Amino acid sequence: MKKLIVMTAAWLLCSMTLPVSAQFAKAEDAVKYRQSALFVMGQHFGRLAAMAQGKIPYDAKAAADNAAVVEAMSKLPWAAFGEGTDMAGNTKAKPEVWSDNAKFKEAADKMMAEVGKLNAATKTGKLDDLKAAVGATGGTCKNCHDNFRNK
Amino acid sequence: MKKLIVMTAAWLLCSMTLPVSAQFAKAEDAVKYRQSALFVMGQHFGRLAAMAQGKIPYDAKAAADNAAVVEAMSKLPWAAFGEGTDMAGNTKAKPEVWSDNAKFKEAADKMMAEVGKLNAATKTGKLDDLKAAVGATGGTCKNCHDNFRNK
Repeated sequence: MKKLIVMTAAWLLCSMTLPVSAQFAKAEDAVKYRQSALFVMGQHFGRLAAMAQGKIPYDAKAAADNAAVVEAMSKLPWAAFGEGTDMAGNTKAKPEVWSDNAKFKEAADKMMAEVGKLNAATKTGKLDDLKAAVGATGGTCKNCHDNFRNK
Repeated sequence: MKKLIVMTAAWLLCSMTLPVSAQFAKAEDAVKYRQSALFVMGQHFGRLAAMAQGKIPYDAKAAADNAAVVEAMSKLPWAAFGEGTDMAGNTKAKPEVWSDNAKFKEAADKMMAEVGKLNAATKTGKLDDLKAAVGATGGTCKNCHDNFRNK
């Protein structure tokens, strides 16, 4: 009987800390999902940054392809920052993601807006447009990492 | 001098085992990238499977949204299975990915073809269409996991 109560309490606790369970089976899945989406985005953004910095040759088609993936990925992570995912898995998210959620959302919106411009910039075929957009987008990455991610 | 030769040899070895380095800075990044893309895809496919199995309510809009992400993600992992990434990071990929690469590519193509049909099936608004497409797509996931991924 005592075991049953403990198990029920544990189950209730899990339920309470996992209101995002409609989308993610476990809080750890939400953390892994947001990290995965951001990692894939970062890899493709890195290729654009390398072109902008002259580390790899500028290739308009590749730039447009990479920017399209960056834009698609940029929309995904946010649904995975639900309540109960603040301490799960190997998250590096700072408590401010939840305690100052309006500011976090604003930072996410800014990033998505710059990514939209970045995508457009890769379609002009001008390296200078890419450089400017990579700089502006990179600034929004840094802003969010500085304020909302532990090292 | 000896140190220089060793370092040069090490560098050559890295270069030889990393012909994908144009896209990924490290073989570990390629592994993390393909696992990340497949994880994100799996999460969205899981929601479609849950609808098909009646575990969550059928929602035509949500189904279409999830299928669109599944399709976008389904194109990404393959570029990250380059030479030199067969033993990197915490990969679960079997040697057959590289030793029987034509079969692996065929399996990937089959999956992408079924995912395309899955995406179309979510646009008819009919749960039965979703059920059939989820079944067919799931079969291609299983086929590839059985043949090319260690447990």
